[in-house]
Amino acid sequence: MHTVLLDMVMSLDGFVAGPNNEDGGLHDWYFAPSGNAVFVIDELIQSIGAMILGNQVFGNQPDGWDTPYKVPHFVLTHTPRKPVERGGMTFYFVTDGIESALAQAKEAAGEKLICVAGGASTAQQFLQAGLVDEIQIHLVPVLMGGGLRLFDQSGATKLEQTRVLESPGVTHLRYRMVKE
Amino acid sequence: MHTVLLDMVMSLDGFVAGPNNEDGGLHDWYFAPSGNAVFVIDELIQSIGAMILGNQVFGNQPDGWDTPYKVPHFVLTHTPRKPVERGGMTFYFVTDGIESALAQAKEAAGEKLICVAGGASTAQQFLQAGLVDEIQIHLVPVLMGGGLRLFDQSGATKLEQTRVLESPGVTHLRYRMVKE
Repeated sequence: MHTVLLDMVMSLDGFVAGPNNEDGGLHDWYFAPSGNAVFVIDELIQSIGAMILGNQVFGNQPDGWDTPYKVPHFVLTHTPRKPVERGGMTFYFVTDGIESALAQAKEAAGEKLICVAGGASTAQQFLQAGLVDEIQIHLVPVLMGGGLRLFDQSGATKLEQTRVLESPGVTHLRYRMVKE
Repeated sequence: MHTVLLDMVMSLDGFVAGPNNEDGGLHDWYFAPSGNAVFVIDELIQSIGAMILGNQVFGNQPDGWDTPYKVPHFVLTHTPRKPVERGGMTFYFVTDGIESALAQAKEAAGEKLICVAGGASTAQQFLQAGLVDEIQIHLVPVLMGGGLRLFDQSGATKLEQTRVLESPGVTHLRYRMVKE
């Protein structure tokens, strides 16, 4: 039984990007981690066996992009495309939806976590389908005032708050979905 | 110089009430506090000198409503009305807007904090006018899936995360507005 973790960075007012798709400092803590952020990032690196992300998140990455997550990545898209190697990882493009991506990620993840890493549309699809087991939100002290919302019509669900860790410039909140 | 604290309960997905204006368990922690919630509520009781709230929040309270905040309350409304006594407190009705309510609250608060206690519309008016100095969010582990959003067009602002306290069923997050 694989655990599906939705792991997202969010502003206090609920956005994953600003009105012009700008980062607005949301990922500053990630690129220069201190305090508990160092532990939280390392924990993700150790525990994730496969990543699922939207094509826009994939496309937004700069040339020469590398991540510490040396696991198979499954990119949701509408256009068939051969797998791509980047930074020692393989990116597989999945055109037949989130259930298919999840099935492939389960094959690849071994005993480890499957991480849904955004963007907002991918996160919402997984939430609406009831496919998320845990949520980790890295809550950043900024009001974006607009942009791309993480939670929108996500459905009503109770959560169990399982961990709260404070770092400079971010709070890491972890929850388990309560499935009744 | 009075500090204006916006103090709100919010679901993880950003709502202060559900699609049918239901509480959805958002205030469970408040009515049966444990852990740090006991301290956080007591701190509010000790530090607040005047409250500002919207008429709907006032109107939503049940008969015989009592609160531990034994300070003057200023209720934003559109209909002139004489002050009302409830539970030993005086509720003053303010028809000429948030700046007037704030001026009256400052007169009443002595050296203490002025607390803006909702609802969402009142909070948004204060945020948009740049009249908030600090924000405390009691973040509740529930996805409402819809309802009344707290942050909507609040304007873009950096915050300083000044305190994170975990309680059973809620996380108390405190921020200072960074005014540049």
